[in-house]
Parts: sequence; C-alpha cells; structure tokens
Amino acid sequence: MASLRLSSVLVTGSNRGLGLEFIRQLLQLPHPPQMLFATCRNPSGAQELQKLAAQHSNVRILPLDMENVASIQEAFLSVTDQLKGLGLNLLINNAGRAFSDSIHTESEENMHVLYQIHVSSNLKICQTFLPLLKKAAQTGPQDALSCSRAAIINMSSTAGSISELLGWELGPCLSYRCSKAALNMLTRCLGLALKKEGILCVAIHPGWVQTDMGTSSTFKPPLKKEESVQGMLKVFSTLSEENSGGFYSWEGKTLSW
Amino acid sequence: MASLRLSSVLVTGSNRGLGLEFIRQLLQLPHPPQMLFATCRNPSGAQELQKLAAQHSNVRILPLDMENVASIQEAFLSVTDQLKGLGLNLLINNAGRAFSDSIHTESEENMHVLYQIHVSSNLKICQTFLPLLKKAAQTGPQDALSCSRAAIINMSSTAGSISELLGWELGPCLSYRCSKAALNMLTRCLGLALKKEGILCVAIHPGWVQTDMGTSSTFKPPLKKEESVQGMLKVFSTLSEENSGGFYSWEGKTLSW
Repeated sequence: MASLRLSSVLVTGSNRGLGLEFIRQLLQLPHPPQMLFATCRNPSGAQELQKLAAQHSNVRILPLDMENVASIQEAFLSVTDQLKGLGLNLLINNAGRAFSDSIHTESEENMHVLYQIHVSSNLKICQTFLPLLKKAAQTGPQDALSCSRAAIINMSSTAGSISELLGWELGPCLSYRCSKAALNMLTRCLGLALKKEGILCVAIHPGWVQTDMGTSSTFKPPLKKEESVQGMLKVFSTLSEENSGGFYSWEGKTLSW
Repeated sequence: MASLRLSSVLVTGSNRGLGLEFIRQLLQLPHPPQMLFATCRNPSGAQELQKLAAQHSNVRILPLDMENVASIQEAFLSVTDQLKGLGLNLLINNAGRAFSDSIHTESEENMHVLYQIHVSSNLKICQTFLPLLKKAAQTGPQDALSCSRAAIINMSSTAGSISELLGWELGPCLSYRCSKAALNMLTRCLGLALKKEGILCVAIHPGWVQTDMGTSSTFKPPLKKEESVQGMLKVFSTLSEENSGGFYSWEGKTLSW
C-alpha cells in the first residue's frame, strides 16, 4: 500500500461501516491524502466521523444524500472550491442500502430507491465529478492508469453477480441484487469509456462484512470491516489499465458477472 | 414447434415489432393458443393488432402501460375474467424502450424510465400474474417444467450482457444496458425461486432485429423480425427445468451474463 499516493479522495456514505473504515485507514497510509472528503447524508449525526475530522484537518465532511441529486452538485461545488484548482484522484462510491423482501413482497418503490442509490446517483456523481477526475488524470503520471492518478471505485457485491448470487440461501433481495448487477454494468461501461481520459473504473466486492447492513438477526458475516478495507486498499494499490471495467474481490480475485 | 401446446399466452408490447410478430406467429402454430392476450399502451392506435383481432377471435387486446402500475392490475382482472378459472401458460415480457445518450448526457430520468419498463414493472407483472401461472402449473403435466405448462419469458439482449456489450461501438446506451443487466438478474432469481412452483423463467436475446427500436439512422440490424421470432418460438419449445433462470439467444445458444 506504500505505492498509494493520493492527493485527494472522496468517499460517499462515510458515516459508518466500510465508508468510515476507509476514512480511518486512508488516514493511516504512509502518505495520507492531503484532502479526504467524507460525505454522508446527515453530517450532524455522524459522531465518529466528526471525531476524526476534529483530529485530522485533512478530513472534510460534506453532506451528500444519494436520494437527492441536487446535493451532488452542491458537494461538487464545495470540493472544487476546497481543491483550489487541483483535481480529485480517487472517488469511492461506497454509499448503499439494502432491503430484505421476498419475491412476493418486493415493491416498486424499493426497486427504484436502491437503483437510485446504487446506480443512477452513482452515475450522476461520476458525471458531476468528471472534470475533477480529468484534471487529476491530466496532471498525474501520463503513462499508466492507477488509483494514484485518477480512479472511480464502485462498491459492488457478489450478491449482485448473476452467476454467483452470494447469500441466495438467506433471501432473494431482488431490489439489492438487481441494482448491484446494474452497477456492475455501469462500471464496465465507464471503465471502457473513461480509459482514454486516463481514468480507471472498477467494481469491488468487499466480502461479506460485519457491518450494520451486512448483519441480520440470523446471520453473522465472516469478515471484519478492518480486514475488508485493508484488503481493498491493497487491491487499489495494484490496479492498472488492464483492470479497468473489471470486478474484483477484496482479496484481488477476478469475479464473474 | 409442433410441441408447443399453449392454451393461453400474454404478450406485452404487442402493437409493433417483435411483440406483434409473436402474435402473428403464435396464431400460425399447429395448435394456436385458445386465448392470446395482446397488451399495449394504446390499443386504439394499434391498427395492425386490431386487424389481427378482427380476423381471430382468440386475440384479445388489452391496455397495459409499463409506466403505470395500476394498469397491470386492471389487465390482470380482465385476463382472469376471460380465462374463466383456467391458468395462464406463457407470459412474454416483451415491451421495451431504448434511449441512445452518451456517458455525459445520460439522465437520471432515462435511467429510471427504462428500469421501470424493463425491471420493476416486469417484476410487478410477474407478481400480479403469478396466481394464473401457478394455476397453469398445477393443472399441466406435473413431471417437467416447460413453456407449454407455465413459463415467463423476459425479452433481454446481449446489449445487457456485461461480458458481451453488444453494439458498444454504436453507443454506450447506459440506461438500456443497466436495465437489461438488472433484468437478467431478475430472471435468474425468478428462475430459481419459481422452479418449485412448476414455473419456468428464462431471458432471451432476440438477436439484433430490424425493428423501429433496433434500427438507427446509421445502422441497419442484420436480422428480420420474422426469423427472430421463428427462432425464439423454436427455443421456447425446447426449454425445460435445466434452462430455468438461464439466458439464451434466438438460436438457442447459452449466453454469458
């Protein structure tokens, strides 16, 4: 991970779970980012994140609500302002939700809420922050794609792999699976389209992690969030052009769609 | 195709293109369906379909707007009434739309419109018509899954295959690709979940067909709709339990996600 040299990073959904852990571990890198934008829906309720920001002046908390497209533009204006002409190296689209309905009870509303959070708002964030990612790509090393230059990481899941269907035995979770399959498609397309701009785009499966979202009353996931994020940061440090548009596990394994 | 013995079929989006061609060719089967429900958004504007219905008393035209969930329930009540206690053998979720935006211009609205048409409304149709499909499954041959017993066919596309990305050179079409990838996931999940109810669920790629939707100003697709539908009906006649939740081409080839 010593090779990760990120001037600036933005992490969505950073008030808890994997997002918060990303902020923690990015701060502990040998070369921590000079600007670490931590977004969440409700900053005033994000106490752990507030504590980190009080200790580290490079942590900048911003409101960003994945269900409110206007907030994406507001976050962009604030980030642009704070970067003072510099680009954004790494965008981690981590914010997510899940519902656990049956095939029979899955509602149109749930389907659209998760599609908005995992797909259409992620696309909107990529579109909105593209000028900052391009700027980083243009001023970084020109020879290769990397997370240290300019990259988008989409937090996916093998629950959204049509061939793997992780956790099927625990429930169909159609709204979650369909949205994550669509996010994988989005990642593949952005990976192909943005390569020529010098921007990497990858989907990552964090493992089945002990977070509020991953844990149910009947099942405790096998993986600690510390291990998951440590693994993912190691993977980020190795990503290059041939990985763009791909789907990888927290351990660096290539996953099937 | 002689083996296709369908008492009742419902085809969405049957006013034109592949949907209309399905109605035409189903009428020409050695054993045509006794009830052929042809749904479309605006029946009064569906002149070709109206002509077929005037010639064939088994063709029943019904309004069904994929962007209006209430119309799904109304169509269900009408179909239930007309079936007079019988079940529905085959549901062909054919209705679809496409937009051809760039990565930069793809809008949140387009993303949600196509997700509604291709995914959440298709799910709603499956949920709503499930009692009729179950009835057909219970009264049909009990030993095997087949289209002649009870089946859902989702009209997908290799444009929605994350590995294949058909037509990438002609445009990213994110809203279309993301929604079809999600439809493939929906198909896989319904295929697994409904097997025990005796209901088959499959995604099919019709080929790149010369329809209003498939043709652009710069490109004429290679396949005639007559050939495509002929091929698909042949595939339907061969589907059985091991195909449930799978993704096949109009020529019967297994496709990758």
